[in-house]
Amino acid sequence: MELDIQKVKQDLVQWVRDWFDKNGPGCNAVIGISGGKDSSVCAALCVEALGRGRVIGVLMPNGIQDDIDDSYQLVQHLGIRHFTIPIGVPVAGVHEELQHVGIAASEQTVINLPPRIRMCVLYAVSQSMNGRVINTCNLSEDWVGYSTRYGDSAGDVSPLGKLTVQEVKKLGLALGLPENLVEKTPSDGLSGKSDEDKLGFTYATLDRYIREGICPDEATRKRIDDLHQKNLFKLALMPTFNPDQN
Amino acid sequence: MELDIQKVKQDLVQWVRDWFDKNGPGCNAVIGISGGKDSSVCAALCVEALGRGRVIGVLMPNGIQDDIDDSYQLVQHLGIRHFTIPIGVPVAGVHEELQHVGIAASEQTVINLPPRIRMCVLYAVSQSMNGRVINTCNLSEDWVGYSTRYGDSAGDVSPLGKLTVQEVKKLGLALGLPENLVEKTPSDGLSGKSDEDKLGFTYATLDRYIREGICPDEATRKRIDDLHQKNLFKLALMPTFNPDQN
Repeated sequence: MELDIQKVKQDLVQWVRDWFDKNGPGCNAVIGISGGKDSSVCAALCVEALGRGRVIGVLMPNGIQDDIDDSYQLVQHLGIRHFTIPIGVPVAGVHEELQHVGIAASEQTVINLPPRIRMCVLYAVSQSMNGRVINTCNLSEDWVGYSTRYGDSAGDVSPLGKLTVQEVKKLGLALGLPENLVEKTPSDGLSGKSDEDKLGFTYATLDRYIREGICPDEATRKRIDDLHQKNLFKLALMPTFNPDQN
Repeated sequence: MELDIQKVKQDLVQWVRDWFDKNGPGCNAVIGISGGKDSSVCAALCVEALGRGRVIGVLMPNGIQDDIDDSYQLVQHLGIRHFTIPIGVPVAGVHEELQHVGIAASEQTVINLPPRIRMCVLYAVSQSMNGRVINTCNLSEDWVGYSTRYGDSAGDVSPLGKLTVQEVKKLGLALGLPENLVEKTPSDGLSGKSDEDKLGFTYATLDRYIREGICPDEATRKRIDDLHQKNLFKLALMPTFNPDQN
C-alpha cells in the first residue's frame, strides 16, 4: 500500500519536534551533509520541525569531493549554518599508523574508515554545539546492509530508517527540495560506481519487494534475501553473554 | 545471589567459542588493550576460547600513556600478537579542523573523541586482519553510562556486558591474570581522577545495588538511579520514526 506522503511529512515533522522536546530541548540538529537525498531530506525535515536556526550542516569531504557543490546548494537552499570539516588528515593519519606497524589495510577498511571518522567529527561538532546527531540512513539501504556500522549508521535519532528510497524521494519533493538533489544517483563516492551498480538491482525493485513482497525474478529475490540476512546484525544490539541464561 | 565464577568462566569460554563458530569461523578476536581489568579479562577469555594464535591486542595510547607497561605486561603474560597504534595524530587532526572552522571543543568532546578514534582504529585492524571486535564494557559501567557511545561501547560481541565489576575481577583471578592488572584502579586516564572519585560511590556499592537492590543511603540510591535513567539510551537502539505507527 502506498503511503500518504503529506501525512508522513506532517507526522514526521511532529515526531522530530517531540523527540527533541523530550531528548534535547533547545538542542541543535547536527547533520552530515553529503549532497545526496537522505541528508538533504533530513536537513529539510529538521528545518520544518525546529526552525533553520537550530539546524547545523557538516560537510566532510575526504580529499577532493567532486560533487561538493550539491552540498553547498542544499545548505544555501535551506539557509542553515554549516561547517566544512575535511576528514583527509585523520583518515590518512590512521592509514599511516597501520602501515607503520605493518598492517595492510583491506578494501573494507579503505571503504569503512572514512564514514567512521565522519561519525567522530559529527559527534565532536554535536557535543561542542549543544547538538543531537541525526542519522540519515533509509530503510532500503538498511535492508541490504548498505551502511557502515558505527559510521554513517550511527546517530541519536533516525527520521528515515523506516522509509524506502522511493518514499524518501517523494518526501523530499513534498518538502520543496530541488529535484537535482532528490533524484541524484546514490553512490559511495569512492568506487566510481553507483549503489545500484554494486547491488545488482535497482532501489525501485528493492523497494517494491520490501513493501509488496513482489520481485521480478528468483535470482534477485535470493540476492536481496541473502544480503538482508547477512546484514541483519547491523540493525541489532551486539550479542552479550548473560550469566542468568547459562 | 553470588554467581559461581568457575561456572561463569566455563560457560563464557564456551559462549565466546560458539559465537565465533557461528559469526566468524576462523576469525581473530581483536581487543583494545588498556591495561585495565576489562580488556585483560576479555583477552584472557578469548585466549581460552580460541587459542592465543587467534587473539590480537591493540594498544592505542593517546600521547604518552603513563601506565602502558600494564598493557605490555598483559600481552606478554598471554603471549598474544599485539600492535601499538598511537591515536594522537588523528585526534589532533580532528581538533585542528574544529579550531580551523571556529568551533571550541567542549569538555565532552575532549573526553569522547579519543575512544571514538580508538573504535575507528580497532575496526581498521579488525577488517584488515580477519577479525571481530570484542567489546570490553561491563555491567556496572554500562549501568551508570560510563562509556562513550560509538566509542568503547562499540564492538561485535560483548562477553562482560552483564557482569559486575566484582564479578569481572573474580573472573580475572579465575583466569590466572596477574593481580595488579585485575585490581588496578579504573580511571579514564584523562582527568587524573579514578572512576569512583568521579561517580561519587564505589563499584562495590554499585554492584551490591545492582545484584541485591541494597544501597547504604538514599542519596547514593538516587544518584545511581538518576545516572542509570539518564544513560539508558546508550544501551538501546536509536529511536526511528515508523510510518505504520503514526
